[in-house]
Amino acid sequence: MNSPPLRVVPLGGLGDIGRNMMAVEYDGEMVVIDAGVLFPDERMPTGVDFAIPNFSYLRENRRKLIAVLITHGHEDHIGALPHLLSEFDVPVYSSRLTHGLITVKLRERRLISEARLNVVEPRTPFRVGRFRCEFFRVCHSIPDAMGIALGTPLGHVVHTGDFKIDHTPVDGMSTDFSALSELAAEGVALLFSDSTYAEVDGYTESEQIVGDALDRAIDEAPGRVMVATFASLISRIQQVVNAAERHGRRVAVVGRSMMNNVNMARKMGYLHASEGTLIPLIEASRLPLEETVIIATGSQGEPTSALVRIARGEHPDVEVVPGDTVIISASPIPGNETLVSNTIDNLFRQGASVLYSRVALVHVHGHASREELKMMLSLVKPRFFVPVHGEYRHLAAHASLAQSMGIPSSNTFVLEDGDVLELSGEAGRVVERVDAGHVLVDGRSVWARESRVLDDRRRLAREGVVTAVVTLDVDGGIVKPLGLVSSGFIELDESQELFEKTSKMVAASLERDPPGSLDLNQVKARVTEVVEGYLYRETGRRPAVVAFVERV
Amino acid sequence: MNSPPLRVVPLGGLGDIGRNMMAVEYDGEMVVIDAGVLFPDERMPTGVDFAIPNFSYLRENRRKLIAVLITHGHEDHIGALPHLLSEFDVPVYSSRLTHGLITVKLRERRLISEARLNVVEPRTPFRVGRFRCEFFRVCHSIPDAMGIALGTPLGHVVHTGDFKIDHTPVDGMSTDFSALSELAAEGVALLFSDSTYAEVDGYTESEQIVGDALDRAIDEAPGRVMVATFASLISRIQQVVNAAERHGRRVAVVGRSMMNNVNMARKMGYLHASEGTLIPLIEASRLPLEETVIIATGSQGEPTSALVRIARGEHPDVEVVPGDTVIISASPIPGNETLVSNTIDNLFRQGASVLYSRVALVHVHGHASREELKMMLSLVKPRFFVPVHGEYRHLAAHASLAQSMGIPSSNTFVLEDGDVLELSGEAGRVVERVDAGHVLVDGRSVWARESRVLDDRRRLAREGVVTAVVTLDVDGGIVKPLGLVSSGFIELDESQELFEKTSKMVAASLERDPPGSLDLNQVKARVTEVVEGYLYRETGRRPAVVAFVERV
Repeated sequence: MNSPPLRVVPLGGLGDIGRNMMAVEYDGEMVVIDAGVLFPDERMPTGVDFAIPNFSYLRENRRKLIAVLITHGHEDHIGALPHLLSEFDVPVYSSRLTHGLITVKLRERRLISEARLNVVEPRTPFRVGRFRCEFFRVCHSIPDAMGIALGTPLGHVVHTGDFKIDHTPVDGMSTDFSALSELAAEGVALLFSDSTYAEVDGYTESEQIVGDALDRAIDEAPGRVMVATFASLISRIQQVVNAAERHGRRVAVVGRSMMNNVNMARKMGYLHASEGTLIPLIEASRLPLEETVIIATGSQGEPTSALVRIARGEHPDVEVVPGDTVIISASPIPGNETLVSNTIDNLFRQGASVLYSRVALVHVHGHASREELKMMLSLVKPRFFVPVHGEYRHLAAHASLAQSMGIPSSNTFVLEDGDVLELSGEAGRVVERVDAGHVLVDGRSVWARESRVLDDRRRLAREGVVTAVVTLDVDGGIVKPLGLVSSGFIELDESQELFEKTSKMVAASLERDPPGSLDLNQVKARVTEVVEGYLYRETGRRPAVVAFVERV
Repeated sequence: MNSPPLRVVPLGGLGDIGRNMMAVEYDGEMVVIDAGVLFPDERMPTGVDFAIPNFSYLRENRRKLIAVLITHGHEDHIGALPHLLSEFDVPVYSSRLTHGLITVKLRERRLISEARLNVVEPRTPFRVGRFRCEFFRVCHSIPDAMGIALGTPLGHVVHTGDFKIDHTPVDGMSTDFSALSELAAEGVALLFSDSTYAEVDGYTESEQIVGDALDRAIDEAPGRVMVATFASLISRIQQVVNAAERHGRRVAVVGRSMMNNVNMARKMGYLHASEGTLIPLIEASRLPLEETVIIATGSQGEPTSALVRIARGEHPDVEVVPGDTVIISASPIPGNETLVSNTIDNLFRQGASVLYSRVALVHVHGHASREELKMMLSLVKPRFFVPVHGEYRHLAAHASLAQSMGIPSSNTFVLEDGDVLELSGEAGRVVERVDAGHVLVDGRSVWARESRVLDDRRRLAREGVVTAVVTLDVDGGIVKPLGLVSSGFIELDESQELFEKTSKMVAASLERDPPGSLDLNQVKARVTEVVEGYLYRETGRRPAVVAFVERV
C-alpha cells in the first residue's frame, strides 16, 4: 500500500525577502512554519504599511492546521501572527526569546489572553499531532534563533530558518552541527535552507570582527559615540555595552523599541551589563561627552526614529556636536538605501564623524554565504531540496549550488509562493498552484494585491485628480456653469482659465443631446470622456477624472 | 590693488548624484561646466520625469554668462542643455562624441538650428572671454570624456569631470597624466574632483577585467548570449563585439537608443566591427542560437526597454529559451535596484542563465576609488580643493582624504548647491547662498521643489481623495443629501453606508448655524473639517478632502 505524499506549500518568502510562511502537510495534518510580514518597497503602493501572507489556503484547510512553529523573533517571521491568530485558534511553538517578542506583540494587539503560546527548548523533541518536532540552534542576527526538524514517515523535514555559521558568536551559541549530523544519520527527506545570500561567495564574517571594530571606534572616539542598530540585534547591543565598559563609558538607550528590547533582554538574561553601565539619557547628558555612548534606533533611516530626528536636529534631548562619532551598525535593507543615505548626509552636515558599513567593518549580516550553504547541505544530506527565503534569483543560485554538490536536479525544486509540491519516497512534483498573492495591510484595511483602490492611488500619485460636478435640473438640462475642482493636478493660478474652458466644452457636448435623453450614467461617462480628452490636449497629462452628477 | 576674487557657485551635483552644473566667475565673466539632469528616485514625487538645475542664479547673471563647457556625454552632464539653451543664447564647447550626442538631443527638441555648438580637441587651448580653456582626456564609462582647465590670474581652475584611472582602457585613451602635470607645474589654484566613489578604498578595476569575463562567458555559453548595458557605454559594446568576433558569433542590436548610439559611434569611428559582424535581428533569428549575440537596452530595468520586455515574455521578436545566457553588464544606479532585480528574476523564471555584477565580473563602473583620487590630488597639487559629484557624505569623505594628503582644512570646502565660494590668492570663504533647489520636469510642466501640486500628490498616493459636493439654495440653506465621491480611498461596496453617514454629519453640523450665516469659504472649511474628522474616526485614514460648494 502506498503511504500518502508529503505536501509542501510555501505561502510566503519564495520570490520575496520577507513575509515568510511555509506549510508542511502529511496525512491530513498541517503545520505552518513562521508567519512574517514584508515591509513595503517601491513595488508596493504608497500608504501600505506592510504585506502579510494570503491565508486562503489555510482557510480552506482549517481543520488540518494543528500548529504554528516559529524559527526566530524577527518581524519577517512573526509579524503576521496577530493576523493569523485572530483568525485561527492554533497553538504556537517558539524558543524563549522569540516567545517574549511574540508576547509583546500580541499584548499590544490585545490578543494575548486567547493565544496558546508554548516555549520550546532546543534539542528537546515534542509532539504536534503525529509529527515529532525538534528545534535546534542556529546562529542569526537575533538570539535564540532555531532551525526546525519534523519527523515524518518519509524521513526528517529540516528547515534552517535564517542562519549563518559563526564559530565565534557573541552569545557563544553556534549553529548546532551535532543536531544536524544526527538528523542526517537518521535520514533527511527534505531540506529547506535560507537563500538570502546564495549569490555571495565565501563565508559571512563573524560577529567578532564587528566587536573588534566597535571596540576600536569607541576607544578612539574623541567625544561622544552614538551607535544605531536594529532594536532586535541584542548581540550587537551587547558588543557596544562591552566596548563601553572596557573604555570607561556609560551607555544610554534612546528610542522606544530599543528601550523595550533592552529591558526585556536584560530581564530574560540575553543582555549583560555591569551595575551602573546603563543609565538614563538625562544622566548621560550630565557626563563629559567622551564618557558616554548612546544606542539608538534609526539604522534604517526610519523617519520617526531617534537617529533620524537627531540627524535632522529635531530630537528634543540629543543634539549632534562636532567631535561626535556616529556608528551605523547595520546595512540598509533593500528599499531603505535612500533613507539611510539621507541620514548619514545629515549627520555629516551637523559635524559628526560617521562610520557605516560602506567605510568601516561595523556590521555583518546574519545570513549564510555560499560556503556556509554548502556546509549545511553537506551536513544534512537531504534527498530533496527546496531553497527558501529569497527572490527568484537567490533560489535559483542556491538550487544550482545544491546540484553542483550532487543533489539531482530532479530532486531540487525552485518553488514560488503557492506552488504545491508533493513528495513521495522517491520523487516529487508540483501538482497545483494555490492563491498565495500578497495581502496588503493599510491601517485597518486588508487588501489583496489587485485592488481598484490601490490602482487609483497610483494614478492619483502620478497626475492628481479632477472632480467634475454636474447639476441637472428637473428636466435633465444642465445647470451652468459646470464645476471643476482638482487636487495634485495643476497650480491654482493656472487652473481657473483652463477649468472655465473645460466647463464650456462639457456643456457644449451635453447640450448636443436633448435635455433628459441621457441617463445619469451616460452623463457621467460623457463628462469623464470630455474632461479627460480636453485636459490631455491642453496639458499633456491624464489626471484621474471623477464625475459627480446630481439633480437639483 | 586687489585683484577681484574667483567666484565658484555649484548649481547642481553637490548633495545629489546627477544634475551636475558648476558656475565659475572671474571679473564679470562666467562659464558654466555641465548641464545635467537628475533621474528620479523615491525622494521625488511620482510622475516627475527628472530634475534639472535651478537657473535663477544664471538668470540674475545673464549678462555675465559667456559659455557652457561640457565634460562628457552622459545625461547627468548634458540632459538639461535643451532647457538651458531654450532660455540662454550661449555657446557650448565639448569633445567630438559629446558634440554628437548633444546634437541628437537638440535635434529631437528642434533646438539645433539656434544652438552654437563647438567641438574642442583635447590639449588644444581656446579662449572664452578672458578665460584660457583647455580640455584634457580622462577615462570614464563613455568615450571622449574630458577634464577642463580654466586659466585665471589666480592660477588654473581644474575640473576632473567624471573620471577614473584605467591603464588598460578599451579605447586606449588613458587619463592624461602629462596634461595634469603640466597644469600643476604652471600652478593650480583650485581643483574640482569627482567624489562619487570617495567612500571606496583601493582602485577601480580596469575595463580589461570585464573584457576577459565577457570573452569567457561568450565562449562558454551553450546557446545564445544576450548582453544588456548602458546605450552610452560604447567601450562595453566594443568589448562584446570583439568577443563575439573571436568566437564566431554575429551581433544584433535591440532597442532604439542602443541602435542609435551604435550607428552614431560607428559612423564617428568610436566603435569598430568587421564587415558582417553586426546584423539585423531578423537575420540573427535565422542563425543557430549558439552563433548569435544580442546587445540590448534595459540594464537598469527600465520598464519599456528591450531586455525588460524580453524578460516578461512581451517582446515581439525575442523570446528567452532555456540555454540562453543573459549578461547584465551594468550595476543598478541607486533607486533602480528593485527594477533590475525583478528583471533578473524574470529571466531566471524564463529559463535563462543570468550573469550580473553581483555574481560575475561583468561590469566595472567609471569612477575613481580612493587611491585614484589621491593620485589626482598628488598630480594636480591644488591650493584649494572642492569635492564635486556626490552626496554630502561622499564630499565629506573626499575632503578628509585631501586633508590627509596635506591640503589644509581651511583650503578645503565641502560645498552644497547654491553656496557661493569666493577665493582670493590665499584664502576662501562662502559669502552667500543662492537659490539652487531642484526644479522638477513633468511633461510640459516645470516645478520648483516646493509645489503645492506635488505635496497634494504625495497625500493622494497615500490615502486617496474624497470630494464633498455641497449645494446651497438661494437662502444659503443646504440642499440635501450632500454628495460624496472618492478615488483611491475605499472599495465601492464599503463606501455607500460610510458616505451616507458622513453626509448626515456634515448636514447636522451646517444646520447648527442659521442659513446664510456662513460665507462660501466658511462652508468649505466646515465641510472639510467634518469630513476629515469623521472619516478618520471611522477608517483610521486621512484622505485628501476637497470641498466643492455651489449655489443653485
